[in-house]
Amino acid sequence: MSGERHPALDGWQTDGGELLVGGVPLSRLAARVGQTPFFAYDRARLTARVDELRRVLPAGLHLHYAVKANPMAAVVQHLAGLVDGFDVASAGEMTTALDTPMAADRISFAGPGKTDAELEQAIAAGIVLHLESEGEMARAAAIAEVQGRRPRVAIRVNPDFELKASGMKMGGGPQQFGVDAERVPQMLGELAKMDLDFAGFHLFAGSQNLRADILMDTQAKIVDLAIALAAHAPAPVTHLNIGGGFGIPYFPKDQRLDLGPVGDHLAELAARVAGELPEATLITELGRYIVGEAGVYVTRVVDRKESRGQVFLVCDGGLNHHLAASGNFGQVIRRNYPVAVGTRMDGAVETASVVGCLCTPLDLLADRAELPRADVGDLVVIFQSGAYGPSASPAAFLGHPPAAEVLV
Amino acid sequence: MSGERHPALDGWQTDGGELLVGGVPLSRLAARVGQTPFFAYDRARLTARVDELRRVLPAGLHLHYAVKANPMAAVVQHLAGLVDGFDVASAGEMTTALDTPMAADRISFAGPGKTDAELEQAIAAGIVLHLESEGEMARAAAIAEVQGRRPRVAIRVNPDFELKASGMKMGGGPQQFGVDAERVPQMLGELAKMDLDFAGFHLFAGSQNLRADILMDTQAKIVDLAIALAAHAPAPVTHLNIGGGFGIPYFPKDQRLDLGPVGDHLAELAARVAGELPEATLITELGRYIVGEAGVYVTRVVDRKESRGQVFLVCDGGLNHHLAASGNFGQVIRRNYPVAVGTRMDGAVETASVVGCLCTPLDLLADRAELPRADVGDLVVIFQSGAYGPSASPAAFLGHPPAAEVLV
Repeated sequence: MSGERHPALDGWQTDGGELLVGGVPLSRLAARVGQTPFFAYDRARLTARVDELRRVLPAGLHLHYAVKANPMAAVVQHLAGLVDGFDVASAGEMTTALDTPMAADRISFAGPGKTDAELEQAIAAGIVLHLESEGEMARAAAIAEVQGRRPRVAIRVNPDFELKASGMKMGGGPQQFGVDAERVPQMLGELAKMDLDFAGFHLFAGSQNLRADILMDTQAKIVDLAIALAAHAPAPVTHLNIGGGFGIPYFPKDQRLDLGPVGDHLAELAARVAGELPEATLITELGRYIVGEAGVYVTRVVDRKESRGQVFLVCDGGLNHHLAASGNFGQVIRRNYPVAVGTRMDGAVETASVVGCLCTPLDLLADRAELPRADVGDLVVIFQSGAYGPSASPAAFLGHPPAAEVLV
Repeated sequence: MSGERHPALDGWQTDGGELLVGGVPLSRLAARVGQTPFFAYDRARLTARVDELRRVLPAGLHLHYAVKANPMAAVVQHLAGLVDGFDVASAGEMTTALDTPMAADRISFAGPGKTDAELEQAIAAGIVLHLESEGEMARAAAIAEVQGRRPRVAIRVNPDFELKASGMKMGGGPQQFGVDAERVPQMLGELAKMDLDFAGFHLFAGSQNLRADILMDTQAKIVDLAIALAAHAPAPVTHLNIGGGFGIPYFPKDQRLDLGPVGDHLAELAARVAGELPEATLITELGRYIVGEAGVYVTRVVDRKESRGQVFLVCDGGLNHHLAASGNFGQVIRRNYPVAVGTRMDGAVETASVVGCLCTPLDLLADRAELPRADVGDLVVIFQSGAYGPSASPAAFLGHPPAAEVLV
């Protein structure tokens, strides 16, 4: 295990020196999958995470899953029975979501560059469209007319504030996302003249935030803004998506988000919304927070080599499967994800770097980590790999096979 | 066109305000491809680049193409008739290379994490193995014995110096690549006892270098090191791959590599090698330099929007197809690739940002570039996109369709 125990390792069990995933020892799971590398997602941990959210969040708040975080069909199917709705970011994700028992009107589609083809599919499906611009609204209305349908639409708002201290800022200042808040009243006036069914608003300010105080401050501002904008709406707000932004601990010294105060505060906001926008379903949309900690990436040591005093564990997978763990996906400073040798959870440690099999120095999974001494054939585990793993990685890079995925 | 004319735009022609690719106006090419986004590679530019290298490089120097830079089958087939050999980095790339008319003994395989399965395929194919460690040598020898074959092997050497000012350093200090130079004599002694056919050395110090003086200095050191190591070899050196590292201009202020002095210096080195290692074929291995400037990425404007005074051209493709152009693939500081509106090459310019269709602020193809005023339907072109494009990008991210590829 790398250095002091990381909060990401809470709840992971071992047996006989092996990590258990879904109760299965890792080497047996690898045999069952039939190949390395693979991503394994723990079904029980997904369920437990949604249960935890249900305990902490107010009863009336709808919990949506953002499919982009992990679009594996089995994961989305499992979550369909646990959450209240899905958010999708493309026609591809929409297809995955529609293949579950989730009702189409519980599925919403946001994304700044929806093509006409995607709008056609979404309107035919009967999902909720999150309009990203006035131009997209006009295109949606024209397509709806051709189809003879009246789609439910919400306006995605680019707030006049941002989510501070977040991994990704997606609101405030000039943005490709949504419509500037100050232009929304006029857009609502135009919307009223179109054959579109006004549903409400989508306000999303950022993601991967570990600070409860900042999340709460942002959520309050989002609700204030939504209530102010609703005064200009052609119909009562029925759909109010306030985004998510809940972070998970990836790196050394990251502290777990304190969910309790966030839940209490959301209960206050829900009460306020119930008073001001009585027909509104209040929605929080979480992706990474639901799936991120339920998954591991597993890769086998192909070579153990020393070079000028440094130990390298060369593995059969790396950034081609797990770009974020290599530190090359938007990170300014590279830091190690939590890492272990899943087949030697309790051996004497050494300092070793874990690298992939690609001919590039970028292919680094762990830089000089404290790990039990591993050898060829051992399985290295990267934790916190349930979100933005294979779908966010350059699988074809250098022509190696893709990673398998398994829900255990 | 973005700001002052960039050297990357040399040789690109326009007709009636449209960019020509392979002589075809861009909008017609898009119609022929049948979709956007796509990558288009210009066959004539590939040929011209190899011709230029042949003019400048000494006659006896073998020119290898590193398939990893662009593994599109049609590109590799085209280059098979132009270069002297291929270098591959995986069994997948090996398969692509073997499907061309190139002889197997002109194909070499380097990569720090070769699996047993890959070694089995490579030895059966009869290509040259670049051994990355003593452990890999032992595994290769065991597999060769089972197959009853005696594979040609070269040792990949991790030099005791690095290629300064290069985009990627792959030599010097502790590395996952190759065997530390100081350990190679002992490894050669072990190799002599095995049923392996010693071919020579592979020394590769880095890539994407625009400084002729630094390249020349490094090449001289590489040849010195190879000659010194050859004294310990069990047989004459017949295969000496000195890598490549020639860079292409991507960013504002990048100057084109001055190839003339590099060629003259390589002629001197080739003469020296001919004297000291008379049986050696001297090889330079180039990937990006051969294909990078022959390709463009083409994406269609889906929405034109303004947000708080900034113009955004939202396109149907972005980092999911072209991660490097978004600045999220190993770059510390994000800078724009050369960009143009291929359907309006001569309009009045404005400042606009080009973004993709993904729900992430990372999806940025051009940050506040000077571009002719574009609208929905126009085609945006990113130059210098012939290398490390679709194969190095997270194609599945957010579930959008992959980019097409076409060789024109």
